[in-house]
Amino acid sequence: MSNYHPPIDDMQFLLHDVLGFKNEDLDRDTCEAIFGEAAKLASEVLVPLNAIGDHNGAQLNGDVVSTAPGWQDAYAQYRDGGWNAVPFTEEYGGQGLPYALAFPIQEMWQGANMSFGLCPLLNHGAVEAIHHHGSDEQKDEYLPKLISGEWTGTMNLTEAGAGSDLGLVRTKAEADGNAYKITGQKIFITYGEHDLAENIIHLVLARLPGAPEDVKGISLFIVPKILSNGTRNAVKCIGLEDKLGIHASPTCTMDFDGATGYLVGEAHQGLKYMFTMMNNARLSVGLQGVAIAEASYQHALAYARERTQGKDYASGQRVTIDGHPDVRRMLLTMKSQIEAGRALTYAAALALDAKDAAKVEILTPLVKSWCTDMAVEVASLGVQVHGGMGFVEETGAAQYFRDARILPIYEGTNGIQALDLAFRKTLRDGGQAVKAFIENLRNDGGEALGEYCDALIETTNVLLEAGGQKDLDKVEAMAGPYLRGFALIAGGALLQKSLSMLEGRPDEFSVEKRRTIEFFMANILPHAKAYLQAARHGCSFTTL
Amino acid sequence: MSNYHPPIDDMQFLLHDVLGFKNEDLDRDTCEAIFGEAAKLASEVLVPLNAIGDHNGAQLNGDVVSTAPGWQDAYAQYRDGGWNAVPFTEEYGGQGLPYALAFPIQEMWQGANMSFGLCPLLNHGAVEAIHHHGSDEQKDEYLPKLISGEWTGTMNLTEAGAGSDLGLVRTKAEADGNAYKITGQKIFITYGEHDLAENIIHLVLARLPGAPEDVKGISLFIVPKILSNGTRNAVKCIGLEDKLGIHASPTCTMDFDGATGYLVGEAHQGLKYMFTMMNNARLSVGLQGVAIAEASYQHALAYARERTQGKDYASGQRVTIDGHPDVRRMLLTMKSQIEAGRALTYAAALALDAKDAAKVEILTPLVKSWCTDMAVEVASLGVQVHGGMGFVEETGAAQYFRDARILPIYEGTNGIQALDLAFRKTLRDGGQAVKAFIENLRNDGGEALGEYCDALIETTNVLLEAGGQKDLDKVEAMAGPYLRGFALIAGGALLQKSLSMLEGRPDEFSVEKRRTIEFFMANILPHAKAYLQAARHGCSFTTL
Repeated sequence: MSNYHPPIDDMQFLLHDVLGFKNEDLDRDTCEAIFGEAAKLASEVLVPLNAIGDHNGAQLNGDVVSTAPGWQDAYAQYRDGGWNAVPFTEEYGGQGLPYALAFPIQEMWQGANMSFGLCPLLNHGAVEAIHHHGSDEQKDEYLPKLISGEWTGTMNLTEAGAGSDLGLVRTKAEADGNAYKITGQKIFITYGEHDLAENIIHLVLARLPGAPEDVKGISLFIVPKILSNGTRNAVKCIGLEDKLGIHASPTCTMDFDGATGYLVGEAHQGLKYMFTMMNNARLSVGLQGVAIAEASYQHALAYARERTQGKDYASGQRVTIDGHPDVRRMLLTMKSQIEAGRALTYAAALALDAKDAAKVEILTPLVKSWCTDMAVEVASLGVQVHGGMGFVEETGAAQYFRDARILPIYEGTNGIQALDLAFRKTLRDGGQAVKAFIENLRNDGGEALGEYCDALIETTNVLLEAGGQKDLDKVEAMAGPYLRGFALIAGGALLQKSLSMLEGRPDEFSVEKRRTIEFFMANILPHAKAYLQAARHGCSFTTL
Repeated sequence: MSNYHPPIDDMQFLLHDVLGFKNEDLDRDTCEAIFGEAAKLASEVLVPLNAIGDHNGAQLNGDVVSTAPGWQDAYAQYRDGGWNAVPFTEEYGGQGLPYALAFPIQEMWQGANMSFGLCPLLNHGAVEAIHHHGSDEQKDEYLPKLISGEWTGTMNLTEAGAGSDLGLVRTKAEADGNAYKITGQKIFITYGEHDLAENIIHLVLARLPGAPEDVKGISLFIVPKILSNGTRNAVKCIGLEDKLGIHASPTCTMDFDGATGYLVGEAHQGLKYMFTMMNNARLSVGLQGVAIAEASYQHALAYARERTQGKDYASGQRVTIDGHPDVRRMLLTMKSQIEAGRALTYAAALALDAKDAAKVEILTPLVKSWCTDMAVEVASLGVQVHGGMGFVEETGAAQYFRDARILPIYEGTNGIQALDLAFRKTLRDGGQAVKAFIENLRNDGGEALGEYCDALIETTNVLLEAGGQKDLDKVEAMAGPYLRGFALIAGGALLQKSLSMLEGRPDEFSVEKRRTIEFFMANILPHAKAYLQAARHGCSFTTL
């Protein structure tokens, strides 16, 4: 059984002390109160449903998807508590809270129950897309209920032959009066059908007649499950995937059989609009990585503190296994990376609030990719700390390991993130934004990060050189380890910055945090050099 | 569906060209013929049952365990083909083949179907224990049928409170004429009960009356399921674990209710005898890591070669995803580490054949620990290469990821392996054997490994110093990253040695292998420095 408790102290320290969050309506105590309320819902309502959801899964009967026992009630509490509205504009009924608060709150849902948290995550993307690109009528019609959570939203992008490569989308849209008829099948649609809300608003990529082949010819449509006249639209779920994890989150194959849809914005601009949904979702997925890693860590720590096994070599006394240095090494490997990941993710939240687009753009692939790879590794260690019990499903550690594995894949695989960092975020402007970002890391990280920042600049120059020579194969081969090294250094810089806030503080929280950071610097950060060395080598082989 | 084919060319190259296997009865062609026969059974019989076993699992009804559909027939083919007898002495009906051949053959069973392969793996340990420590009568009674595979053997070590810490074993043995009555419960007993063989010979750790507390008071007993007079012994399976993976391998809770048992060797020597079983099993588990990683790699490679997605940035042509450098990076990360792991494992096999105990002792924790951590990482990449399809169970990639996760845990967790390397294999003789081993790595690895071997010697000296100062907490904290760095360097040295065998060879096999090794040197090996740096730092924190 999970016993996840949102780490409010860590969140508060990071926001207020390290990242310098300032908002006159939201002082530290107010944040504490809001986080406390969210934590209550997370711990008391969502946590107990995590294993139940895993065990029961979502079920398809006919075209009706039933969520696991207790989920409808939990969603009602979440919705009625106003939690879905947290980050959205007050104009359409949102709470208007900054991302600096919305991220920690979302982390709580994801840490408590990632399968549950996916429903709001996708809804959020739909709200963003309609808010930024929809007409006033569309905003008035859909936003209030999507924001309140009475309705949920989905992202319908993927087709059987079109995953990362959306140019291959074949779903058709044909004009029908003021609307369109949408025909085709989409796969891997998270919460494409369920019983938590009255209506589901699908955002669907499709191709108009005569549209250019490739991504320049896809358009974005709103396809409601229930039309405004109350009739059921011609869209239904025709299959659920049997997945490794997130069993309670229905992954739907959706059939659009001439369903009524409404064009969002202009024709053929679907890809651009999709990125509005997607970029937000990418940060949220990184946040899921932090959240599930934290839950896995807490689970392992609780076990290690109660499991007696073996002796302390020095004293000969029997000890609980958190007394064994190798177990502590595993726990610190988990904790220190979670803290680095959380720092990067919340830094992105503050950059979103500050509308610092350059910073958000660089942090997005780092957060999505590194925090999710990290989550898989941390959840694997979480199993390991449990020994044989970790392999037994009842213990709960294995669920985190299974659930976390989706994170490096969805919302753009981590390989795609690396290409995004290398091409769009580094080569496109000749490395200007990235180099400015690295200089900030140098300031944050101080002396301890100096040689790492040097290596990162050096590697960036190698990347720019390969780009300049149009050696795109080399750029692509460099991208993965470049991102990995970059993220470790960025995380390390923020941890070093934290360290300077902790100096001389003798309380247990500060002492523990200093040790965690020291561990990261000695054990985790050195791998950045290996990644950058690999990146500079940039070998790419055409046969296997 | 799995489409694993044993990599006979890789195996042969490694054995004959790199490791210099010489045996006048077993030339290259003879080995090829034997491997070919084994590969046929593996590919045609065991591979198709891998997913079936995962899906159906082993089932408990009353105290009867039924294996998955088709398993009885497969086991009969395996047994009747004489495969179980491969490495055992001809005196008791074995084939008397060297480990140099037995390891590749066992790799095939494990790669084809790890849940199946576990049954012979445990049987093997039982044979070793009886062969080395049993009386002549016991050998005559049990070995012929265990070796033929008509009977299977188990290792009954773990109890609910006694996992890594066998001093806590509470199962009792009380004298009863020439035999003993065994009473207690054991957990996590692999193939403790099943329907593949006529009889199951349990090797059970238990404590005689008045025995010292702690590991010095445990003794080893033979407890057959069916006694020699044909009656059923008082031992039965009372539960099966619901596990993350290896569903088809029954993990039993065994109840001994005054079961008749026979003492092996002398009283109170159980721990020593257990290590006879265990050390063999540890190498086999490392081999399982290589095998399942290979299977996961082949699965991912096959998918990458047929899945069209995205374009080549340079040419603009649509490509199968093995054309993307980042996908190639993942595939080479898999393949190059598999090759390093296989080299280490087969080197251990040759050392076993040569009765080079010092080499076997050092290689055992390296192989068990590194190859199994590697297997989890490789199987995770195997999922990633598949993108969204990797998270869908039907694809088969996820099964490897789930199955592999047991490997770092059983037969001594990888943390235990690290302590074994640091204390027993390094400190005990003042680092002599380890340093001689490292000098051999330097010879094998040549210039490319020089600075790595220097760093490894330096780190060994730090470990010896901490040991000399009785700073055991530091030794323990160093152990994990020391092992990890050590194994990377040992694997790298053997790959460098392979490289010198490939020089100037223009065939596709050699070209591909050279590239794989070059990739390892540039991308994987550099992490050894980070691990050794972490080890030297050796920080261990007493609170969390």
